[in-house]
Formats: sequence, structure tokens, C-alpha cells
Amino acid sequence: MRGSIIVISAPSGAGKSTLVKRLLAALPGLRFSVSCTTRPPRPGEKNARDYFFVTRERFQRMIAAEEFVEWADVFGHLYGTSRRQLRAAQEAGKDILLDSDVQGHRQVRKKLPEAVSIFVLPPSFRELVRRLRARHSDTPDVIERRLRDARKEIRHWPEYDYLVVNDRLPQAVQALRAAVEAARVRRQTQQERARYICRTFGG
Amino acid sequence: MRGSIIVISAPSGAGKSTLVKRLLAALPGLRFSVSCTTRPPRPGEKNARDYFFVTRERFQRMIAAEEFVEWADVFGHLYGTSRRQLRAAQEAGKDILLDSDVQGHRQVRKKLPEAVSIFVLPPSFRELVRRLRARHSDTPDVIERRLRDARKEIRHWPEYDYLVVNDRLPQAVQALRAAVEAARVRRQTQQERARYICRTFGG
Repeated sequence: MRGSIIVISAPSGAGKSTLVKRLLAALPGLRFSVSCTTRPPRPGEKNARDYFFVTRERFQRMIAAEEFVEWADVFGHLYGTSRRQLRAAQEAGKDILLDSDVQGHRQVRKKLPEAVSIFVLPPSFRELVRRLRARHSDTPDVIERRLRDARKEIRHWPEYDYLVVNDRLPQAVQALRAAVEAARVRRQTQQERARYICRTFGG
Repeated sequence: MRGSIIVISAPSGAGKSTLVKRLLAALPGLRFSVSCTTRPPRPGEKNARDYFFVTRERFQRMIAAEEFVEWADVFGHLYGTSRRQLRAAQEAGKDILLDSDVQGHRQVRKKLPEAVSIFVLPPSFRELVRRLRARHSDTPDVIERRLRDARKEIRHWPEYDYLVVNDRLPQAVQALRAAVEAARVRRQTQQERARYICRTFGG
């Protein structure tokens, strides 16, 4: 059976990274999508595990060949998700988790309408402020920018299939897990098998 | 949060009863819908637990008042699912499981388009024959009729949201569970909450 493509988006501070880590640990059939990037590797980063590190020339040839289901320029570095790589994992029966912002999600949905998408919401603005401050890693300016971005991003919830409020972590992980597992038995995923079964009935 | 309505259908012998029992045991928030019927109670059956036992006159007034989301005449007895009862359970935050045949499912989808539906398939015709024979409860004639009905029913799989092949029981139960749990975080179910959260952002 072909795997599903799951896109997950969330405003900064909603707890997406932790959720994704827990989800991948809970579902062995789920793989995190490895992006291509023109940014140089940081110490400890490994090619094909963290990113596919490619030259800008190669990246631009891939854009021209419509090889990306989504790509973006982030502070001068290019990041993208290769369609060929997604297909290969799907054909191997793996579900693929794609971490995208709302723009990336839009691009993916246009190119892969069968993708399942999940938006993670914080329980409230006040709680998002509290979480961003509790990190102690960002300056007040950066926190301000993240909150401004969050305000814009959360307006995109109507574009997603599932909305998971990250109020209590175990419940949120369980909800994500259900969405991924349910994707495996959606009609769209199971139709080949259903047709096969119907043929055994002579129908 | 309002509960979801889950409709489950399957050809006879696909193992629906066992699946439903396991599913209800696994999910405390899920309730089995209690139907109204004009059939007299059998020994041991309790009103409001097994069925709501009503007179034919009352049932027909309920039909006239469009009180049923689906109803059928089965060998001269009337069976139906009351809309009011579904709503009450939903408002109490309970998910409701409705056991319906393909005709019932059609009626429910027309009246409650937000319902989630699951079709349970046997792995193959041959396996269905094997299971029906292994029951030792039906005569060859009855088995023949069940197989004829099954052949017609399975053609309706394209009308359902989820297709669960009951090959191995624990996996099938897990798939049903995922579909029910995912229904709780669908955009359609969460939109009130999402709007509330957006308002806390001043959006």
C-alpha cells in the first residue's frame, strides 16, 4: 500500500517540534521528510539525514524541472522538498511527515491534493506568550516578531484537514497519531485494495 | 466540544459485530446508538438499552415529523434512528456509533453530511465464504443469500470516508479507533474552538 503525505504547520511556540519528535517515536511507519537546502551544513549535521545539501546551481535546475512540491527562500538560503524523494518513500509504503509553514502547505496542497494536513494551535494567545517567554532563548524583539507572525499564520486554519490544539501534550500526540493512522484507511488510500477485493466477488 | 457521528457498515460475515464490541471497549467516549423499533422485545432485552420499543403508531408519527435520520422496514418490523437522540448525545460531547446498512448510510449522509463513515471489508470473497461457513449457524441457503447480498453491498465502498479491511482483528480495531479519534480533531469539529483561539489573538 502507498504511504500518505502528512503536512504539519504551526505558529512558532505552539510546540510543533516536540510533538513531531513524539509522533515519529510512536509511529515506526512514519518518516520525516528530508529537505534539500543550499545552506552549508552546520557542525554535526549529516547529508541525507538532516538535509540534502546541494549547490545553488543544482537547486535552481531542480526548480526549473519542477522537482519541488514546495520550496522557499529563507534569509537567502533555499529550502525545498523533492517530489521524487516523497514518491520513493510512498512507494516503499512509508508515510511521510512534512514540516511546512502555511505558504509551503499551500504549495504542497496544489501539487499533491491527496496530502493530509494538520495545523497545531496553541490554546490561546496568552499561553503562546507565556511559552515563548519561558524558553528564555529569544530577545523581547524576537518574541514580538514571532507573535506578529503567529497572528498572521493562525488565520490559515481553515485550509487544513485537522486542527490539533496543543493544550496537554499526550492528548495532542494521540490526536496527531490518530490523524496519521486514519490517513492509511481513507478511501483515497485504500481504493486499489477495495477494487481488488471487489474483483474477488466477481463484481 | 460536540461529539461526532460515526456510521459503520459491512457485509454480513465481515466481522462488524466483534469489531464494534472491541471499539466500544477501547473508547469510553464512544456510545452505541440505540435504535427505535416496533418489534416486540425479546427475552432479556431492555428498553432504552437495546432498543427504544415503540408502537407502530408512535413510529409512524415520528416518520411524519421527520424525526428519523434513517429508518427501514425489516421483515415487517420498523427500525429507526432518532435525530433528537443523536443530537442529545452529541451535545453531551459523546461520539455516537451508528450501525447501518448501505441504505441507512445513504439516508444518514443526506441528513447529516458531517457524519464520518466507515465500510468494513472482508479480505476476499473466498475468506468471507470461509467465515460464514465456519459459523455453523446458517444453512447453505442462508449463506448463499448472505453472499448475494454481500456482492451487492460491497459495491457501495466508494460512498464511505474510510475503508477498513478486516484481515487481522487487532489492526482493524486500531484502524477504526484512529478514524473515530481523528474525527474529533477534524476541522469541521474543531472550528468553534479555532475561532475562539483566533479571537484571543485579536484576529
